[in-house]
Amino acid sequence: MGIHTYFQSLTDLERIIRCPGKFKFQEHSVSAHSWKVVQYAKTLADIEESNGVTVDWKKLYEITSSHDYGEIFIGDIKTPVKHYSLELRAMLQQVEEGMVAHFIDEHIPETFKSIFRRQLREGKDQSVEGQILEVADKMDQIYEAFAELRAGNTEKEFIVMYRSALIKIKQIKLHCVDYFLQHILPDLVSEGARSPIDIHQITEEALAA
Amino acid sequence: MGIHTYFQSLTDLERIIRCPGKFKFQEHSVSAHSWKVVQYAKTLADIEESNGVTVDWKKLYEITSSHDYGEIFIGDIKTPVKHYSLELRAMLQQVEEGMVAHFIDEHIPETFKSIFRRQLREGKDQSVEGQILEVADKMDQIYEAFAELRAGNTEKEFIVMYRSALIKIKQIKLHCVDYFLQHILPDLVSEGARSPIDIHQITEEALAA
Amino acid sequence: MGIHTYFQSLTDLERIIRCPGKFKFQEHSVSAHSWKVVQYAKTLADIEESNGVTVDWKKLYEITSSHDYGEIFIGDIKTPVKHYSLELRAMLQQVEEGMVAHFIDEHIPETFKSIFRRQLREGKDQSVEGQILEVADKMDQIYEAFAELRAGNTEKEFIVMYRSALIKIKQIKLHCVDYFLQHILPDLVSEGARSPIDIHQITEEALAA
Amino acid sequence: MGIHTYFQSLTDLERIIRCPGKFKFQEHSVSAHSWKVVQYAKTLADIEESNGVTVDWKKLYEITSSHDYGEIFIGDIKTPVKHYSLELRAMLQQVEEGMVAHFIDEHIPETFKSIFRRQLREGKDQSVEGQILEVADKMDQIYEAFAELRAGNTEKEFIVMYRSALIKIKQIKLHCVDYFLQHILPDLVSEGARSPIDIHQITEEALAA
Amino acid sequence: MGIHTYFQSLTDLERIIRCPGKFKFQEHSVSAHSWKVVQYAKTLADIEESNGVTVDWKKLYEITSSHDYGEIFIGDIKTPVKHYSLELRAMLQQVEEGMVAHFIDEHIPETFKSIFRRQLREGKDQSVEGQILEVADKMDQIYEAFAELRAGNTEKEFIVMYRSALIKIKQIKLHCVDYFLQHILPDLVSEGARSPIDIHQITEEALAA
Amino acid sequence: MGIHTYFQSLTDLERIIRCPGKFKFQEHSVSAHSWKVVQYAKTLADIEESNGVTVDWKKLYEITSSHDYGEIFIGDIKTPVKHYSLELRAMLQQVEEGMVAHFIDEHIPETFKSIFRRQLREGKDQSVEGQILEVADKMDQIYEAFAELRAGNTEKEFIVMYRSALIKIKQIKLHCVDYFLQHILPDLVSEGARSPIDIHQITEEALAA
Repeated sequence: MGIHTYFQSLTDLERIIRCPGKFKFQEHSVSAHSWKVVQYAKTLADIEESNGVTVDWKKLYEITSSHDYGEIFIGDIKTPVKHYSLELRAMLQQVEEGMVAHFIDEHIPETFKSIFRRQLREGKDQSVEGQILEVADKMDQIYEAFAELRAGNTEKEFIVMYRSALIKIKQIKLHCVDYFLQHILPDLVSEGARSPIDIHQITEEALAA
Repeated sequence: MGIHTYFQSLTDLERIIRCPGKFKFQEHSVSAHSWKVVQYAKTLADIEESNGVTVDWKKLYEITSSHDYGEIFIGDIKTPVKHYSLELRAMLQQVEEGMVAHFIDEHIPETFKSIFRRQLREGKDQSVEGQILEVADKMDQIYEAFAELRAGNTEKEFIVMYRSALIKIKQIKLHCVDYFLQHILPDLVSEGARSPIDIHQITEEALAA
Repeated sequence: MGIHTYFQSLTDLERIIRCPGKFKFQEHSVSAHSWKVVQYAKTLADIEESNGVTVDWKKLYEITSSHDYGEIFIGDIKTPVKHYSLELRAMLQQVEEGMVAHFIDEHIPETFKSIFRRQLREGKDQSVEGQILEVADKMDQIYEAFAELRAGNTEKEFIVMYRSALIKIKQIKLHCVDYFLQHILPDLVSEGARSPIDIHQITEEALAA
Repeated sequence: MGIHTYFQSLTDLERIIRCPGKFKFQEHSVSAHSWKVVQYAKTLADIEESNGVTVDWKKLYEITSSHDYGEIFIGDIKTPVKHYSLELRAMLQQVEEGMVAHFIDEHIPETFKSIFRRQLREGKDQSVEGQILEVADKMDQIYEAFAELRAGNTEKEFIVMYRSALIKIKQIKLHCVDYFLQHILPDLVSEGARSPIDIHQITEEALAA
Repeated sequence: MGIHTYFQSLTDLERIIRCPGKFKFQEHSVSAHSWKVVQYAKTLADIEESNGVTVDWKKLYEITSSHDYGEIFIGDIKTPVKHYSLELRAMLQQVEEGMVAHFIDEHIPETFKSIFRRQLREGKDQSVEGQILEVADKMDQIYEAFAELRAGNTEKEFIVMYRSALIKIKQIKLHCVDYFLQHILPDLVSEGARSPIDIHQITEEALAA
Repeated sequence: MGIHTYFQSLTDLERIIRCPGKFKFQEHSVSAHSWKVVQYAKTLADIEESNGVTVDWKKLYEITSSHDYGEIFIGDIKTPVKHYSLELRAMLQQVEEGMVAHFIDEHIPETFKSIFRRQLREGKDQSVEGQILEVADKMDQIYEAFAELRAGNTEKEFIVMYRSALIKIKQIKLHCVDYFLQHILPDLVSEGARSPIDIHQITEEALAA
């Protein structure tokens, strides 16, 4: 029909819960996650700029705000599937991309089709912006898992989430990653000192991995 | 590890919401849906028996109670995917079956592996029991969609759900289908008379389709 | 009116919360509980069969799937009442059975009345199936209480629930009880090792009681 | 132990839902209901006083604030039970009163026992205060049912609730009942004019009954 | 229009959450809080009376039941604002009182205006009743914070809430404060012995402060 | 302490509900709202660009993503306060800005202070980006109110919200406003055709106002 269909659909992502099925003290919707990724990425890009790196803000805006739109069709199910088999994960990725393509074909007006294809593409490429998105996305995984661990959630799922996100981040060569590891992560870890789970040790091990 | 992993996982299905993303007045978990399917199927089988049909209760028990277990891995996402493309749907089915197979390989003890493979297979075959499962599953789709329509939910998704389930049911040749169409459906439709949506007409059209 | 009234009412059990009033990290509906009991009972019966015991699957199906239907009328309130007085508990049981009888008289068609009376009777008799139901019902009490204890719920209600269910189970002479105590319970207990509450010790004491 | 056990238990009533099982757009806890009854009763008593009637504020305070405490033991289940049989309802009342008596015996210190027995007694006697409590309790039933009807809830349960509460109120001879019928109810009815259910007519019929 | 507007608005306070934004295991509405304050105050006043103090029950009724009505307009936001600046807090208080005054002017009939102005005024004056309200209000803050600490909520907000309420209470010279400190608080503290947070020590420090 | 305090606080906005107190079929958090505003603004800016207007994407990114951060301190309460008095509203705005300033002073490291002051300022100035933010913010008000009206919510609050947002938007001279009025709004209105409330007429009146 038109852009209305797209705008209308955004509210569905308020009802898609991240990490579905698993018990959590705090549930997060895909839309709330997306907003936090937008916020983290903004500050991460500020740090890059203050180190002399040029940031394409339009691109960063586009890829961070839309990066999980495809979950409207298949939910937030990639993580557990990945644990089982890379082949199944690849198939699932194909299903998601196929449905996004279908959606644009059917609902987006001709003059916007190319814009939406660009905006709803996979944004995590090797550009500065793509890497910032990767860091911001994993940072939210850290914050979400940390909140569970701190509250005493003993399901190991959240230790896995916390650790794997941290390992991913530390491999990315950006000024903002240095800043995160030196100035943000220590504050977070020290806040978790009262947790029944030893977050300090998990962090040390992940950083040494 | 053992059967404990399976039993423990059942509680995850209490947190998988059916028809995720769409606005509903009443949300239903996969486990609540599964229980209602077990209940409908029991009465449907009673009707078959009272018409002289032999029912294999063990098989019926197995296939009704476990029929949506695979959703623990990929959620309740088949319906919208189907609307887009049969090919994507087939891929998704493959992902789900692959993950169930992985799960049994990893977690179920050797002596139970074949039992679990049989129980967690797709149960909707052409046997009486398989057909009863199909009817019971679609009946719950009707009850869930009806509750939305009756409460005034104007999203057309629920009209589609109601109609397609009814069309599917009426094509199945079972005594219990006759009973449902003659004695249960009319009570349901008359209860919806106050709804802003014309449930009577939608029903008539589906039955005539 | 007819069977529709019964089918329609099932959804009410999705809104009856188990152990109402008490603070829980995870709430469970009567319908989700009923489904898990159906699932446990299936595997328990598989274990009996593999030990040469004959199982009446139709009976097992009937009594497990309907065993808490009466709670639609009076909620899940038996446990705390029992703590106070056996006499009050007996009265409450009478109220529940009286309302089920009323319901069948009023709403179920003549030809189904005897079937529904059989299905909605108290199923926990001394038959193999009745005992399997008792074990499955208590197993879910263990799983529910365990999830609270593991998450750090310090209300002693859940210690009482866990312990009394375990004591009840171990008194039942079935092959599946042996299997549960030897192969399932130890996995569960080891998963709770990180809990602030000493689940291992509570378990040992209950088994020695 | 002491008064602490009583104070601690109050929070359980925040988790006891009124009219459990039935679908509602808005759920109300027993504690929220109790607070609204306290509020209505205050204004109703103001109206009595302004008409020269003497109000015992201490008694009114006691009976309104505690009038549903017994539901902590058996939930909010009296209404549907009443529909079936007065005998069952009487038994249930006995169970509730028995448990309140047990609770006081066990937990309340000797010096407070008689105060708590007076406060947790059935307060709806023929005194002005007892009658004000009855009106206030039924007024909340009207407000709760009205909110459902106005939002388009077509379950007839709420029509029954609305009508029976209104019939009960109009039989009570108090100045505040006159005020309610002349100055409050008309405002409420006119607010429901847009509802798919004809609240005006239901009201007229109840007042004429 | 009339009193109806006031009665109708009460239900909005069931949807105003206390301490908004902060993570809590148990959320409390302003209406549930208000009801518990009414209940505590009743027993506190009983204790005063048993020590020979005269209590104005009508006044106590009025000020306890309505003490947080103003939050309908600005929510439960005073506590965090106070942490920042007394000046901002004073402004906020002015906003709340301004809106209550507006509300009465617009909606309450002439004959009730003065009653409502008295009932919706700030009740925490230096009278016995005003001081009982202060104690009861702070007691609920203690119970709410305690429930979080006991469940393992490590956010320091709740330690601050618990401690500051206790410090406030102990400064008030009432018989019921003595009773609370000697007979109720110790029961509460001993119930929290299993908490990961040292509630006993926090309590000792607050009492010694 | 550092940026961590800011990132950590973002999750609080998932728990601040928009339009608190009022009954809604669908509740929206401030974070979900913020994300939708980011998304709308992106497409609105695309439309401006396609009409030859230059957009400062960095500025747009900053002001859209952070525009409601101040609600972390005082919740979403501006709208109803505004109805009463512009003076009270101005005071409240001052409270919010005072608390944001306090927060930056206390928690944000020196090198980021000026960046955060710029990002957390009121963004709705007369620049293209400021106007796009205003349109996007009001568009979400329209979508939220529309969803209530379509579902049959008869509280006039939502008619007021819908109408006032539309009147505000149509006064802004931007290409994207033309596009919205001509191509998006008609789709939305036609989707609401089944609603018990006459959305078409309300829209016409607002556009003619």
